[in-house]
Amino acid sequence: MSFRIGFDVGGTNIKTGIADDDFNLVSKKTTAFSKEIGYVNTIKAMHQTVMELIAENDLNGKDISAVGIAVPGSVDVRNGVVIHAYNLDFHNVHMTEEMSRYFPGIPVTLINDANAATFAEFKTGALKGYDNAMLLTLGTGIGGGLILNGRLFNGGLGNGVEPGHVVLDRTGPLCTCGIRGCIEEFCTVRWLLQKGKPAGYTEVKDIIDAARKNEPGAVSIFNEYVENLSSAIASLTNLLDPEIIALGGGISLAGEVLYLALEEKVEQKSFFKYPYKIVPAQLGNDAGMVGAAAYAFTRGF
Amino acid sequence: MSFRIGFDVGGTNIKTGIADDDFNLVSKKTTAFSKEIGYVNTIKAMHQTVMELIAENDLNGKDISAVGIAVPGSVDVRNGVVIHAYNLDFHNVHMTEEMSRYFPGIPVTLINDANAATFAEFKTGALKGYDNAMLLTLGTGIGGGLILNGRLFNGGLGNGVEPGHVVLDRTGPLCTCGIRGCIEEFCTVRWLLQKGKPAGYTEVKDIIDAARKNEPGAVSIFNEYVENLSSAIASLTNLLDPEIIALGGGISLAGEVLYLALEEKVEQKSFFKYPYKIVPAQLGNDAGMVGAAAYAFTRGF
Repeated sequence: MSFRIGFDVGGTNIKTGIADDDFNLVSKKTTAFSKEIGYVNTIKAMHQTVMELIAENDLNGKDISAVGIAVPGSVDVRNGVVIHAYNLDFHNVHMTEEMSRYFPGIPVTLINDANAATFAEFKTGALKGYDNAMLLTLGTGIGGGLILNGRLFNGGLGNGVEPGHVVLDRTGPLCTCGIRGCIEEFCTVRWLLQKGKPAGYTEVKDIIDAARKNEPGAVSIFNEYVENLSSAIASLTNLLDPEIIALGGGISLAGEVLYLALEEKVEQKSFFKYPYKIVPAQLGNDAGMVGAAAYAFTRGF
Repeated sequence: MSFRIGFDVGGTNIKTGIADDDFNLVSKKTTAFSKEIGYVNTIKAMHQTVMELIAENDLNGKDISAVGIAVPGSVDVRNGVVIHAYNLDFHNVHMTEEMSRYFPGIPVTLINDANAATFAEFKTGALKGYDNAMLLTLGTGIGGGLILNGRLFNGGLGNGVEPGHVVLDRTGPLCTCGIRGCIEEFCTVRWLLQKGKPAGYTEVKDIIDAARKNEPGAVSIFNEYVENLSSAIASLTNLLDPEIIALGGGISLAGEVLYLALEEKVEQKSFFKYPYKIVPAQLGNDAGMVGAAAYAFTRGF
């Protein structure tokens, strides 16, 4: 038996997981991340967590066949360098080289976290079996990734893909990225809460629940959100015509009411008038870890 | 020596070309297209044109190694079927099968005309040497195609790609496709002429020339057009991060003034703040023919 290590490094914590041959997590642990200690000490601590997980699970360190790291930022995949990960304060950091000191002879790879989540859903989640597929994560921001012709597409220049920063309204509000009217301005948790607040809703779940119960204020917010998100998805499907779209992040847990409404609207707004499958992502918060491990394994062999 | 036949079937005429090993056109001819005679007679006439070109150029029919057909519509590439080509009134027409009667034993392929133009630019024009590239044709409508990971991307489901129908303004005017605010509503010849008319301009060329001469009315239209097109391009580059974008169609002949302005604006509006190369397409009206021939050859062998 062999196994793979997957790390998902975030702005406040690091998730470390051990995955088996089928990319199921055998064990996982969340530890704190602190910008202050720098990347060398961060990697040292990450290795330490792996050693603990191995001991706790009676595994043999010699059976590690690949190590993958997911980070929230731009990545030079080929050289294993984090170009910019603002939340981590990592800039031009050669993470794979440093990590390889602890795992000599084992392939160590680096991947953007949204791409890792996409790859995880492709290998073992909602996108499994589809060679052309899209993941959109609907959270504080909008992230996502693309599977094209059966492979993770990392952007033509390797910068990754940013579906959240496709323009949906050229005269819309200025996005944090400096562009006007990005998809991110209309489809996030932030958008929902902003609309919900005057109507007395303070949680996304409350809005969805109230919409399910036909409370007019909530229904109106929900419908406007579906208009926005379906326009965003139709815009992307008109360009790429994927077989399936999976939604991740908090909003994606809204249940069938969201997916049925989206599928109907996207078909209407689609150039090809195609009934695209829109489904919830399956791996939740584990997606980054699982994807990092799976990507490391796939690239390493 | 061998050569390839490329057809570009349009709503009013059919272009037929003979291309050599390097996809240079040895000879070409334009004939009329008429909806009324139906596809069987159309294909018969297309074969006749090839026979004439062969005779005129003292070629040997036995040296034909591939036949490619480009059509303006949705195409089942694998089976060589035109699904819908509204301008031709071809619906569920097995064009390659019918054409193969005249070219037994030779691969005959079918391709969407925008994809053909993209493939031509990739094989022998402005996109040559780039594995991730985009063509946008700016004409009456907006068409285009994608080269991803060194291959023509025909859409995940094979419906093709429709960059002109990515949404640029969700509350904008209704597009002919039924979607609101498509890129096509803001970047066509039609848009330019609509804006130009009240200012006394009746041709795109007049607007561009006047803008070059700093006539205020024309400068204002030109600047607004550059805003629109740069938003459209940045939106697409934020998703796909291509190495290069080529522009085709009448507007693409506007010269350096257009490309410099676009490159500057796209970099500003790009999520990656990357100075994407934006260049004119090189094959003009021959692109469909050349691409059809090149695609047939590439797929046939």
